Amino acid sequence: MKIAIAGYGNLGRGVELSIGQNPDFELFGVFTRRAPETVKTVTGAKVFHIDNILDYKDEIDVVVICGGSATDLPRQTPELAEHFCVVDSFDTHAKIPEHFAAVDTAAKKSGKVAVISAGWDPGMFSLNRLYASCILPEGKDYTFWGKGVSQGHSDAIRRIEGVADAKQYTIPVEAALDAVRSGKNPDLSTREKHTRECFVVAEEGADKACIEEEIKTMPNYFADYDTTVHFISKEELARDHSGIPHGGFVIRSGVTGSGNTHIIEYSLKLDSNPEFTASVLVACARAAVRMNADGMTGAKTVFDIAPAYLSIKSNEDLRKEML
Amino acid sequence: MKIAIAGYGNLGRGVELSIGQNPDFELFGVFTRRAPETVKTVTGAKVFHIDNILDYKDEIDVVVICGGSATDLPRQTPELAEHFCVVDSFDTHAKIPEHFAAVDTAAKKSGKVAVISAGWDPGMFSLNRLYASCILPEGKDYTFWGKGVSQGHSDAIRRIEGVADAKQYTIPVEAALDAVRSGKNPDLSTREKHTRECFVVAEEGADKACIEEEIKTMPNYFADYDTTVHFISKEELARDHSGIPHGGFVIRSGVTGSGNTHIIEYSLKLDSNPEFTASVLVACARAAVRMNADGMTGAKTVFDIAPAYLSIKSNEDLRKEML
Repeated sequence: MKIAIAGYGNLGRGVELSIGQNPDFELFGVFTRRAPETVKTVTGAKVFHIDNILDYKDEIDVVVICGGSATDLPRQTPELAEHFCVVDSFDTHAKIPEHFAAVDTAAKKSGKVAVISAGWDPGMFSLNRLYASCILPEGKDYTFWGKGVSQGHSDAIRRIEGVADAKQYTIPVEAALDAVRSGKNPDLSTREKHTRECFVVAEEGADKACIEEEIKTMPNYFADYDTTVHFISKEELARDHSGIPHGGFVIRSGVTGSGNTHIIEYSLKLDSNPEFTASVLVACARAAVRMNADGMTGAKTVFDIAPAYLSIKSNEDLRKEML
Repeated sequence: MKIAIAGYGNLGRGVELSIGQNPDFELFGVFTRRAPETVKTVTGAKVFHIDNILDYKDEIDVVVICGGSATDLPRQTPELAEHFCVVDSFDTHAKIPEHFAAVDTAAKKSGKVAVISAGWDPGMFSLNRLYASCILPEGKDYTFWGKGVSQGHSDAIRRIEGVADAKQYTIPVEAALDAVRSGKNPDLSTREKHTRECFVVAEEGADKACIEEEIKTMPNYFADYDTTVHFISKEELARDHSGIPHGGFVIRSGVTGSGNTHIIEYSLKLDSNPEFTASVLVACARAAVRMNADGMTGAKTVFDIAPAYLSIKSNEDLRKEML
């Protein structure tokens, strides 16, 4: 199967690397909005301008779209689904129904399969919420994120006057996790579930107390959380906080007929958020091509993908080796 | 949807209770090999003799078969799949391909869907092995069982001379779990992964040292493990060890392109092994009926079920609420 990458940031690079771990795929190339000659790929993959992608329509089996959810994907995914099987990681939860509808129309028109909102949340976490709620209809589920870097919160700190650079970690509260695991089904406030830890490089002569106050009282981002602010040097930030780790927990606690409690827990601990997301996208790209070959068309999510479609192994081998 | 239960032990009772939590199902009745008038159901469900099940062919949408894997299911599932959509929990891993083939032939003949090997292992654990291996092809997975009661091992102790009753717990070794979670991909021996703890009621005057020795050296069951034996009274066994808890962990540790490590962990902590298994079977029964309505036929496993089929919710609601 020939696979193309549209958009070449952290996620696109992650997809490029993941393809090397999946021998049934051949990387056709990277499509970018930038001037192709200015883009250097990690593995030496060919680079094309995105405007020319339709020239390669018959040579590409699936396109992994690696743009942002705010402005890129709402436009790109429907456009490309009119010509290709595609996969995206659209993650604006509230706008998924709208995005699904637009992509579904395009993919039904072209007779292709378009998997949207793949990754880990939405994605693997969603799957675990679904499976657990089907098995334990009388129960409650909890999603915790972290410990990991929140890009949006880091950006919000960087916009404060006097801040040169910053990194923000979202951290689940251990006591809240334990309460959920105990089967007590606690009601947890925002503050009780997560804390936020900020590593800030202040500009020369900036008022640190003032920056700290502004972070801690920032509405939506920090005001509802217990927030810790550490001022560190530019060198320390580069040395200790250059990674993009993330992860989290999906826990459902439920009760069956005669009053027995059950706890289902799924957790991820990821050294690289974009590389893990990319690996999910590549597995979904395989599923998109194979579902399309089986006659399916239209927009799909992880909920619509029979798990065997994700695997390089045959159904027989899966039953023999993994069931 | 009308659902029937074939076989009425712990698992059958669990299915009966689970149906009460799933309002899209109506329990048609319980089918048993015993004389129906001697069987009292938990919820007052009607009881029929299994020999008469074909009389109700047009009134039943799906049969959950709750027999044992050793002798019941290899015969019952293909037989019933010739007439009904069915679900079973066949769990003899090595014989799954054979069982699948026999059931597939029967279900293709009748045009029904037969889900085999549903439950938690095989079942939810298998799904997690599959998903994790697709996302992290360069990695290693580990399955740990427990803490929980192993019926087979408990039975093996009960067969020893001088033993009145016994219960055996399989316990994962915390240090092994930690080593796996660290991403080190350790090679673990049988002894390093699990310990076995036995609670034994000895008969009056029995030689306890002799019993303990016989347990600890029993080939296949205990010789390869660090085993602890506690002698307790009949009353203590009834008071402290009457439950059937179980659970375990599926952990995959893998590396992506630029050398980042990722840990995917799924765990279950179950107060009642049969009630949880039953709840998985009922969700799969829903999927069987709906996949059949969509034109599918033949034997299926959890690998073949698109997750949305398991849920009582519409696809639109799932995307809106769970993705």
